[in-house]
Amino acid sequence: MRQSQLFTKTRKDAPSDEVSKNAILLSRAGYIYKEMAGAYAYLPLGLRVIDNIKKIVREEMNALGAQEIIMTALQRKELWETTDRWSDEKVDVWFKSTLKNGTEVGFGWSHEEPITDMMKNYISSYRDLPVFTYQFQTKLRNELRAKSGIMRGREFVMKDMYSYVLDAEAHKKFYDATIQAYLNVFKRAGIGDRTFVTFASGGAFTEFSHEFQTLTDSGEDTIYLAREKGIAINKEVLRDDVLEKLGVKREDLEEVAAAEVGNIFDFGGMKSTELGLFYKNEAGESVPVHLGSYGIGITRLMGVVVEALSDEKGIVWPKELSPFAAHLVLAGTSETSRALAEEVYKTLSESGIEVLFDDRDVRAGEKFADSDLLGIPTRVIVGDRTANGMLEVKDRATGDVKEMTLDELTSELKK
Amino acid sequence: MRQSQLFTKTRKDAPSDEVSKNAILLSRAGYIYKEMAGAYAYLPLGLRVIDNIKKIVREEMNALGAQEIIMTALQRKELWETTDRWSDEKVDVWFKSTLKNGTEVGFGWSHEEPITDMMKNYISSYRDLPVFTYQFQTKLRNELRAKSGIMRGREFVMKDMYSYVLDAEAHKKFYDATIQAYLNVFKRAGIGDRTFVTFASGGAFTEFSHEFQTLTDSGEDTIYLAREKGIAINKEVLRDDVLEKLGVKREDLEEVAAAEVGNIFDFGGMKSTELGLFYKNEAGESVPVHLGSYGIGITRLMGVVVEALSDEKGIVWPKELSPFAAHLVLAGTSETSRALAEEVYKTLSESGIEVLFDDRDVRAGEKFADSDLLGIPTRVIVGDRTANGMLEVKDRATGDVKEMTLDELTSELKK
Repeated sequence: MRQSQLFTKTRKDAPSDEVSKNAILLSRAGYIYKEMAGAYAYLPLGLRVIDNIKKIVREEMNALGAQEIIMTALQRKELWETTDRWSDEKVDVWFKSTLKNGTEVGFGWSHEEPITDMMKNYISSYRDLPVFTYQFQTKLRNELRAKSGIMRGREFVMKDMYSYVLDAEAHKKFYDATIQAYLNVFKRAGIGDRTFVTFASGGAFTEFSHEFQTLTDSGEDTIYLAREKGIAINKEVLRDDVLEKLGVKREDLEEVAAAEVGNIFDFGGMKSTELGLFYKNEAGESVPVHLGSYGIGITRLMGVVVEALSDEKGIVWPKELSPFAAHLVLAGTSETSRALAEEVYKTLSESGIEVLFDDRDVRAGEKFADSDLLGIPTRVIVGDRTANGMLEVKDRATGDVKEMTLDELTSELKK
Repeated sequence: MRQSQLFTKTRKDAPSDEVSKNAILLSRAGYIYKEMAGAYAYLPLGLRVIDNIKKIVREEMNALGAQEIIMTALQRKELWETTDRWSDEKVDVWFKSTLKNGTEVGFGWSHEEPITDMMKNYISSYRDLPVFTYQFQTKLRNELRAKSGIMRGREFVMKDMYSYVLDAEAHKKFYDATIQAYLNVFKRAGIGDRTFVTFASGGAFTEFSHEFQTLTDSGEDTIYLAREKGIAINKEVLRDDVLEKLGVKREDLEEVAAAEVGNIFDFGGMKSTELGLFYKNEAGESVPVHLGSYGIGITRLMGVVVEALSDEKGIVWPKELSPFAAHLVLAGTSETSRALAEEVYKTLSESGIEVLFDDRDVRAGEKFADSDLLGIPTRVIVGDRTANGMLEVKDRATGDVKEMTLDELTSELKK
């Protein structure tokens, strides 16, 4: 895409009320636009990042055998009353409104209830299990405060997956496979080395639940990390008996700030019992279906990646998240340099490589600063002194510069 | 995909309160699930159709030079007050709620206001124009009644595009190009031959606006069609002076039922003036930006296609909308037939062809009835008598049956 055609522009300043690094950088670079506190529009570059994250998550969830669906934002009061999660005293983030006929409706902040209720149409026998399903849903939550940019919003995209299985054993198997799939997601999202499966309190059915926590100074959570052992513990379960069970000594723990990027829960048969989702086993007995739920905040993950990987010059995208594979910057002013840049653009595009081509009529220094801010991993610079067919290729993350022929660059980017 | 793995099942009956053909067939076939009147979940097969429609629309909008974004559901009261579209007297489909601090918010039923307001950040000079942008947004509308299945809902997906240009002349050019792009969309969606650009009343700026109307008995609108001339007229503008202007005689008009699948509007400079979106022209004068808006109901289009193309046995998908390219039905019970079906499944899948493989352990008659209901265009039948490597291939729309080798079938489906 030609940058001269992109309708967004970089800005020197973010909106004055932004305090979080992710929102400041993403607003300045033109990835997002703040509609109101906690609600952001995703502009062409931002939507590309979101789509890249969805692609990774979709691939990993499909590999688990999960089937994608999309539920509704509108929620039925009587359904949520069944599980005692309708009243504002029990759930304090509901947005509610009223149909013309006076019926109260809610806007989905979570979807265990409607999905589980729907499954009564499709699950009645042990032969119908297991069912794994997920969606990318825009969740609406009436949060009291919303100051963390796209890390915690009143409106945000979440991938929520649900597993319906026979029993605890089958649950454990899928749960463990999901932990691995989640680690794959975070690795591909560029934060694998700083993201830890974290022990948290387990609720009614299991001793522990698990969170995925990414180390970043701006994280809202504090976790305790036995880095050598790759074990992390949430504040809730930082007790001597837990430490003993996990074989970790208190003095080996580092207290670190972290942001939650995923969570997985075991509901056992509770929700199914409440909502009436039972299956007949081989003996003909009625058994509640065992439910697990598995979340990844898609927009939140984008924010955490910006918080964790950006530097003083701007955003640094990992390869699989970047809106473009390469940022081609025409830094020269001569006819020759423009012709060469056009040739590079054409060749890379025809090889199926996504390129943002800064063909704008502005100073090279401004282009470089914008390129640092935008954070595309590979920058290709064509200047007036570019000669002998050698292109200057700069790595955004390390700052390393290499000279490459167009052929070499094409092969490199196709990897 | 193996049908035995698909969690949805076909049903003999739709929910008892469904009256529209589209909702009845799509529910019975497991494409959609009714959460409440006017709000449907899209299940694995249904989401595939929606994604196919989005793909077509995205390709055609991108070809116009439009850039995809996604705005928010949450809407600011003060913004919509600016254009006098906040009060329930002026707009009777708002869902509204209240933030914790008492601020009223709305849920987006349309997005001209927030997109135009946002553009003040990106458009200030004639050099910034034109800007064409679009989104696939879940719209929320508090409709009094919702009985047309997915054709008119309280929650539905719409593609809305916006053009910001210099003047009426530039607008006309893009508007005309969009008419052509829309006709491409409807042709690819299988309803090109029954969809007509229809003259409707134009509002403040132009004599006419345009709708795209698809002929179907269940359509909510009545249009007047000069079929020979390819001209259609909305009831609103069925006046002698209009007929004369269009060169159509009243006695040549057919009165037909139709469903609106798209619409395009010319706002002129009105919204930009109201919201303060001006650009500086070459003479340095401040001029309101000329706005056009262009809608296609994505979920509605899916419903209209079902209404228009289905037959007494079930749904008939056009090729580009079908959830799978082929429905492979194992009708035999012998080991040989199962092995052959597995081979066909493997070969087609490895050729990149999307296949639904009915490998279930149910009677052939039930499989054929389900296949008719599901509506995948090409059915491949492997029975006990399938021999000499010849496969029975049935066209869902025409009922025509051909015998083909696996090689011939693969080539045919790859077209």
